[in-house]
Amino acid sequence: MAFFPAALERLIDQFAALPGIGRKSAQRLAFHVLALPDAEATAFADAIRAAKQEVRCCRLCQNYTDQDICPICSSDRRDHSMICVVSDPKDVLSLERAREYNGLYHVLHGVISPMNHVGPDDIGVKELLQRAASEEVKEVIMATNPDTEGEATAIYISRLLKPFGVRVSRLAYGIPVGSNLEFADDATLTRALEGRTEMQ
Amino acid sequence: MAFFPAALERLIDQFAALPGIGRKSAQRLAFHVLALPDAEATAFADAIRAAKQEVRCCRLCQNYTDQDICPICSSDRRDHSMICVVSDPKDVLSLERAREYNGLYHVLHGVISPMNHVGPDDIGVKELLQRAASEEVKEVIMATNPDTEGEATAIYISRLLKPFGVRVSRLAYGIPVGSNLEFADDATLTRALEGRTEMQ
Repeated sequence: MAFFPAALERLIDQFAALPGIGRKSAQRLAFHVLALPDAEATAFADAIRAAKQEVRCCRLCQNYTDQDICPICSSDRRDHSMICVVSDPKDVLSLERAREYNGLYHVLHGVISPMNHVGPDDIGVKELLQRAASEEVKEVIMATNPDTEGEATAIYISRLLKPFGVRVSRLAYGIPVGSNLEFADDATLTRALEGRTEMQ
Repeated sequence: MAFFPAALERLIDQFAALPGIGRKSAQRLAFHVLALPDAEATAFADAIRAAKQEVRCCRLCQNYTDQDICPICSSDRRDHSMICVVSDPKDVLSLERAREYNGLYHVLHGVISPMNHVGPDDIGVKELLQRAASEEVKEVIMATNPDTEGEATAIYISRLLKPFGVRVSRLAYGIPVGSNLEFADDATLTRALEGRTEMQ
């Protein structure tokens, strides 16, 4: 039953279509927007349009940018011999925050997932291989998530990269810093044992 | 640090300004919108504009509608002698769902809250008194939330309504149906005892 005015129902539907937003939350958000001053609601609508129009993917790394080539790829202060492969633009943010990595990135915008009909062609593997073919590139770090699909994607891509003669590495698995052995799952503990390093 | 393109940051800001949406969720939602087909993103932006433009408050009950007078107020199958006063349009939906009430509503769009500088003039108390002054109205049911501000608002309005000679009632307090005494708080149990009814 469409209880609210049609335009309000449509707005609720739009919010409810967002990930992690249920019907009740969508109602709450739509009511909030209705109660906003006109200028603020318009700013919200404009922000959606502007983001879609202005934000594109970097021609090289596929990360979101509003330029042809993103600031990281065009920076001469970054190490152009390393490419870190992530599944999502958010992962670039996480890695940048750690301030440890100074190379370039390659954003797949997904992982290979036969269940969801996502194949290598859908996540820009070809573009990565083209970049890896450049003489400049010495190492590719696979930084997809440590879950089944992320792992499978990393293995698949690393095999394709072998012929190019670049070093292919994978982020280390282990106990998170500041965490507790008690709460670590078996798979993580197994990996932490396998990957143990000698103490100095 | 504005890490993402400006237009994307602005969209994240817009989502983060919504109630109950933190920075991480706002990022997730903004990325979701970026990944939408153009037509769907445009539909989202249009839905916000349309809702703001088309949805207004019913001239009588102040509930959201796209007409001058809402379907409930203009229905001749509703009992026009009763007005149920709620603080929020969502509450009308809840009461309608119960299919028990067949009278009219009055939506305050808030409660009296001196802490938040919300006074009687801000929640349309005057409009309610005008309606209660009509000969037709026999009973006003106060259905604001059973919290401090909802209760204070109900008491304040009921005093103003007294001179009009209408019956003023309040929703019953008590143990929720299907609930468990064990989980009922003291205030609810006290009210449930006070409001106990004789068994037939």
